[in-house]
Amino acid sequence: MTDLAGYSCLSFLTDYGRSDGFVAICHGQMLRHAPAVRIIDITHEVPPGDVRRGATVLAETVPELPPAVHVCVVDPGVGTERRSVAIAAGGHVLVGPDNGLMTWAAAALGGVGGVRELTEPRLWRHPVSRTFHGRDVYAPVGARIAAGLPLEEVGEEVAADTLRSLPEPRSAVGPGAAHGEVRAIDRFGNVQLSLGGGALERMGGAPEGPRRVAVRLRDRGDRVIAVGATFGDVAPGELVLIADSAGHLAVAENGGNAAERLGTAVGDPVDLEIREG
Amino acid sequence: MTDLAGYSCLSFLTDYGRSDGFVAICHGQMLRHAPAVRIIDITHEVPPGDVRRGATVLAETVPELPPAVHVCVVDPGVGTERRSVAIAAGGHVLVGPDNGLMTWAAAALGGVGGVRELTEPRLWRHPVSRTFHGRDVYAPVGARIAAGLPLEEVGEEVAADTLRSLPEPRSAVGPGAAHGEVRAIDRFGNVQLSLGGGALERMGGAPEGPRRVAVRLRDRGDRVIAVGATFGDVAPGELVLIADSAGHLAVAENGGNAAERLGTAVGDPVDLEIREG
Amino acid sequence: MTDLAGYSCLSFLTDYGRSDGFVAICHGQMLRHAPAVRIIDITHEVPPGDVRRGATVLAETVPELPPAVHVCVVDPGVGTERRSVAIAAGGHVLVGPDNGLMTWAAAALGGVGGVRELTEPRLWRHPVSRTFHGRDVYAPVGARIAAGLPLEEVGEEVAADTLRSLPEPRSAVGPGAAHGEVRAIDRFGNVQLSLGGGALERMGGAPEGPRRVAVRLRDRGDRVIAVGATFGDVAPGELVLIADSAGHLAVAENGGNAAERLGTAVGDPVDLEIREG
Repeated sequence: MTDLAGYSCLSFLTDYGRSDGFVAICHGQMLRHAPAVRIIDITHEVPPGDVRRGATVLAETVPELPPAVHVCVVDPGVGTERRSVAIAAGGHVLVGPDNGLMTWAAAALGGVGGVRELTEPRLWRHPVSRTFHGRDVYAPVGARIAAGLPLEEVGEEVAADTLRSLPEPRSAVGPGAAHGEVRAIDRFGNVQLSLGGGALERMGGAPEGPRRVAVRLRDRGDRVIAVGATFGDVAPGELVLIADSAGHLAVAENGGNAAERLGTAVGDPVDLEIREG
Repeated sequence: MTDLAGYSCLSFLTDYGRSDGFVAICHGQMLRHAPAVRIIDITHEVPPGDVRRGATVLAETVPELPPAVHVCVVDPGVGTERRSVAIAAGGHVLVGPDNGLMTWAAAALGGVGGVRELTEPRLWRHPVSRTFHGRDVYAPVGARIAAGLPLEEVGEEVAADTLRSLPEPRSAVGPGAAHGEVRAIDRFGNVQLSLGGGALERMGGAPEGPRRVAVRLRDRGDRVIAVGATFGDVAPGELVLIADSAGHLAVAENGGNAAERLGTAVGDPVDLEIREG
Repeated sequence: MTDLAGYSCLSFLTDYGRSDGFVAICHGQMLRHAPAVRIIDITHEVPPGDVRRGATVLAETVPELPPAVHVCVVDPGVGTERRSVAIAAGGHVLVGPDNGLMTWAAAALGGVGGVRELTEPRLWRHPVSRTFHGRDVYAPVGARIAAGLPLEEVGEEVAADTLRSLPEPRSAVGPGAAHGEVRAIDRFGNVQLSLGGGALERMGGAPEGPRRVAVRLRDRGDRVIAVGATFGDVAPGELVLIADSAGHLAVAENGGNAAERLGTAVGDPVDLEIREG
């Protein structure tokens, strides 16, 4: 899907929603500079300005895509002094604001290989607005890279350790217990935890990990939940603890919405404890 | 739009929503295996696990598309023993779970021409999760078929009459009256009935069918409604009974939302009765 | 992006939403007649029948797209006597109902260059429904134009001054004060006014226009708001008056939703008054 002269795929994640023309306007910029590129819209439903949510979805999605340029815009600081950057990572390129949005994705792609600050206005759309850098900077630069522009030409090299990053979600695993937080809640109400699927094994318990785990969300009481591999491993309406398709532990309800039922939200602390028998 | 070596079009219907990365991840799989295919997203707004709603939208849409592979995922039983199948129908191919989601669409395309169970793991994404077969099974297999993989290679033949199907909506037409149910409600609040557009003629009445019909939804009282051909055939705010663009009878409101006004929902029983004069 | 034989891009704006199959069905028609065209979905979230909202988004988006055919369907009068037209404007073509939806876009593209009424049924999908001209008329005709059909062949020429248009939003600027209305509210709650970004300069005040302006929405009291260039020019939670990326004055809140905070809606009258010091 990639060749020496660029990328055939360009992905796009924003908090623009789809009720205005913002996404289409950026698509227009992309097709001006890379007429043959395939655009994959990751999501445009990131809540306005929610950099953390954008970073979570981005990190979960990009490793599953073909080698691509990923244009990422959740940018509450647009037009202020925050930098704009292009990050090379694992054969992909991430383009967007330097506000922590892209560093988890870079790690998920294998780590930052190099960073350039976008300092070449000749590559942008003019006049450059102070409020729509998706249109004016990120879409045209991303598309030009997809069309074969060498990364060195987008601007000056920047040290990777100067990139802004978000605090990592809490995650600690010990014998018999683990502590983390709610990392994400998906459309189905599945409650993804900051704990990897391997946490259960490390906690120990029955031969292949515990069969039942007490889950405590925030200060609400313990709920003892069966460990399973898919929703249908428990009866309809029952909760189940699974390793989800992204490799995280998640609390799900067979045929229902676990997040609503548990009244939980992203960032809530979670304690797990083995309960055999 | 099709040739001996596959399909140029791949459609995609799910209950994934667009706020997570699930749809994009599947698009990524599709482009890996069929880099040149055109993807048509039918909808991803099927309510979570609502197989019947997915089946209704699918059946209404696929006959209007060019010959294509249709990847269909409303799959509350994912990772359990339900089969995964590819159904040939009218020059199209439907790929998804064997839970009734695709049989109405197959009928709308002209009937089931052959069924294969997806039993060839070498065609899937690995590791195969227990909760995301859209990514791991349906998208890659659908894309490979679009790219030219012969249908026989996806797995073993299965008898068409072993396919699971949904109960057909009620529908009965006699002289002067008809009985059915609400089949779907669209974004505009148009209330599509399980009765075909020809039902009015069969009910009889004035030369070209009745001009006014009493409509009773569930146990709510009769409403006498004009028969028309489009919304603007009645005054703004009035209800009208039309044959809709999919060939079903539907109750609509000119400039308004008939479903809200009537307080009706999918599955509600409907009685029609001619009221001339 | 365009050549003698058509357009490589086709944009699409409707009030169809994405929960039914309507958009996909139209995409199917587009790909039947223009298999290689790139489709840009502008938005399908126009509120049902809201021609004014559709016209606003369209006018703001199309000048930012490559030369294209724009298929536009917000059409509460579908199937009645309203005309269907194709409008040439600035190297683009707009295709849709003659109900005011497309005239602002034509103006934004440089003005109407010519109008054809769609009177050639041989170019349509048959049978033609009375309620879904997006599928039956606009998508196939738009796609054929994109594929190279000369505009003269879609139907008879019509005088540009017979096109129906929407009333222009109020807008008046004088020394020290301006009067207009709320033109649009975007996903972020930014309140776009009918006043252009140049209004501030014309109002006068401090060397480069006023630094603070009293804003009165409908009959709610004055709020004195700082003039800035981007959201981050004021403290989080503060309102700021900017010239937005489309060149209009807009009231925004740094990190918040100005429209919710001000309790305003599209069409509300707005008064601005310079408040220095």
